[in-house]
Amino acid sequence: MFEFRVEATSGAARSGTLTLPNGTVATPCFMPVGTQGTVRALSPADLKAVGAAMVLANTYHLHVRPGEDVVQGLGGLHRFMGWDRPLLTDSGGFQVFSLAGFRRVDDDGVEFQSHVDGGRRRLTPERATEIQWSLGADIAMAFDHVVPGGADEATARDALERTLRWLERCARRHREMLEGWKVGTGAPVHPSTFPTFRQTLWPILQGGTHRALREEGLQRILDMSAWTGLAIGGLSVGEPKPVMYAMLETLQSQIPAPIPRYLMGVGFPEDLVAVVELGVDLFDCVAPTRNGRNGSAFTPDGPVNIRNATYREDSRPLDATCDCETCTTFSRGYLRHLFVAEELLGLRLLSLHNVRYLIRLADEMRAAIRRDDFTRWASEWRRRYTKRETP
Amino acid sequence: MFEFRVEATSGAARSGTLTLPNGTVATPCFMPVGTQGTVRALSPADLKAVGAAMVLANTYHLHVRPGEDVVQGLGGLHRFMGWDRPLLTDSGGFQVFSLAGFRRVDDDGVEFQSHVDGGRRRLTPERATEIQWSLGADIAMAFDHVVPGGADEATARDALERTLRWLERCARRHREMLEGWKVGTGAPVHPSTFPTFRQTLWPILQGGTHRALREEGLQRILDMSAWTGLAIGGLSVGEPKPVMYAMLETLQSQIPAPIPRYLMGVGFPEDLVAVVELGVDLFDCVAPTRNGRNGSAFTPDGPVNIRNATYREDSRPLDATCDCETCTTFSRGYLRHLFVAEELLGLRLLSLHNVRYLIRLADEMRAAIRRDDFTRWASEWRRRYTKRETP
Repeated sequence: MFEFRVEATSGAARSGTLTLPNGTVATPCFMPVGTQGTVRALSPADLKAVGAAMVLANTYHLHVRPGEDVVQGLGGLHRFMGWDRPLLTDSGGFQVFSLAGFRRVDDDGVEFQSHVDGGRRRLTPERATEIQWSLGADIAMAFDHVVPGGADEATARDALERTLRWLERCARRHREMLEGWKVGTGAPVHPSTFPTFRQTLWPILQGGTHRALREEGLQRILDMSAWTGLAIGGLSVGEPKPVMYAMLETLQSQIPAPIPRYLMGVGFPEDLVAVVELGVDLFDCVAPTRNGRNGSAFTPDGPVNIRNATYREDSRPLDATCDCETCTTFSRGYLRHLFVAEELLGLRLLSLHNVRYLIRLADEMRAAIRRDDFTRWASEWRRRYTKRETP
Repeated sequence: MFEFRVEATSGAARSGTLTLPNGTVATPCFMPVGTQGTVRALSPADLKAVGAAMVLANTYHLHVRPGEDVVQGLGGLHRFMGWDRPLLTDSGGFQVFSLAGFRRVDDDGVEFQSHVDGGRRRLTPERATEIQWSLGADIAMAFDHVVPGGADEATARDALERTLRWLERCARRHREMLEGWKVGTGAPVHPSTFPTFRQTLWPILQGGTHRALREEGLQRILDMSAWTGLAIGGLSVGEPKPVMYAMLETLQSQIPAPIPRYLMGVGFPEDLVAVVELGVDLFDCVAPTRNGRNGSAFTPDGPVNIRNATYREDSRPLDATCDCETCTTFSRGYLRHLFVAEELLGLRLLSLHNVRYLIRLADEMRAAIRRDDFTRWASEWRRRYTKRETP
């Protein structure tokens, strides 16, 4: 039920199939982000129309509002949000360290202030694991301690050690719940309310921008258990991009090939191409929806800001190569009008296109890997994308 | 190409078919409002999915932004907004009198201040007609002078007389453009950029809440020309509802049966039932989308405010009788979450349901008329709708 097969490689780039309880996912795969149990401005039908295979939601946000009890009472996260394909929930570690107004970390867990109601709350590795079990995504993430991109080695070491200790506790709790689910006892939640499928837990590798810490962290994670996947966290959090690429380069040869690699929070089109070249299989980012809401659209010729007066009478589609509803139905002139007139439909149409763009980009990368032509393809793609002519 | 057939009646209620260049419309028909060339939060595909037959857009708004030249340059309003079914444009009279910060009316027309950029602009009967010809909707409306619901007889008489004088000018200009279009000369716009179909012009009957003025206005309109339809304006603008119903009752026996009757800006479900009972064929209102964006949903048991804490863990659909995407996919608990978490998808899902609700209501009314059972149907519908139990 949890299986990953690498089916083709081209240099370090890989293409494979990830099998999960709610479906299979062809990799490389871009996951749209549905932080609060909805990919902003898009419906599940929209997401299927643009070919999304797997969606990410957030434990911190759903715990704070509406609460995992509500989600579970309404049939679990899949049913709650009307998404019957694979789901992954982030553990909330990243949000506790980036969103909460106040937080106090100790070895037990983190006390923090909710960004919604200001109330004090506490997350521990066990709680984060239990919440995710209640939500019922196909993949749960271990609770991690994230430090900023420029953190020094001592700070990064401290967070890495804590993340590793927390990983053991997450894994133990997850195993207990899985056993409880299997035998119908020993779990804190009554089995009849359990999701009707099992969930897997993936560790998150931290270590900041310190190569030795990353390598040590990886070995200790691999020594701990046989994982069905591995997430790389704490990158794309403010460090220079070459530093991120250097970390991935170091790691790619050391992560066993059969383990799918999920780079968290990445990214923009150029990042996706770069990290797939460095062996990454899965990625997520709010960029397509957030940028879409700001009027910025991805195109093969680089980003287009649709609010620009240039597009006022432009009858061309946003992206002539694209098959999405936005590009096959509307002119740039109309899309600009929607943004200038502050119409809600504009937010949706650009979000829809941007998600479709990244999914098509992943499709193209898959095809290039499968014909073992990734380097040449990537170089041509970059030449066009970075030409930065106004298309 | 413009034809209306009354096919069934039940008391004063009528059901028929309106044939327009871009399609046929079964009446009674609710038209969703796409003020700025988009029905707020809904795509053309959404509108087709909920069965919308005809959409309304606004001359004032599209003239101010993006400008009728832009819309025409992008292929006309149908192509601009991606809607290939019938369209009707309001003339801008109502908006000039309700939205503009400043306005000065004289017999020639209205000078007003744009609500977008504050610039001074001028609309005359001729300009309003030319703009609508450029936009290219199936039905254009004559430019009218609207007075508030409580206007005294002298004020209402003044506005009625002006509206009648303006109607002659609109009709003359429209005839000139139609002739110009037919022979390819004499029109101010080059024929090759014309919409590829003809447009009809409907008069708007004013007269406030003064029965004698309404009757006189109607006779003078009917004496002026052979119209393909008639709009009743200046109602539902603040007067008590019984007053509006009394006006419609007076008019319904005096409007020749073969003329479709369009009551502008109405309305809520209970209004639709009441006015169809008084012989109205067409109506439009922003209520389904505006209320939807505020979290208020129409249901057969009366309105539901989805933000209410009652619905937090409610696994039922918004409206168990409804076949729309919202009701067949999501629970009330999820919809409430979307509103509480301020997610864009909520605005769309409730707008979608509310439009579908009014279209289904019109469908039901049509069926009741066709089996000559409107009065009984309406009384049962009202009993359930106004019970006002929290469903």
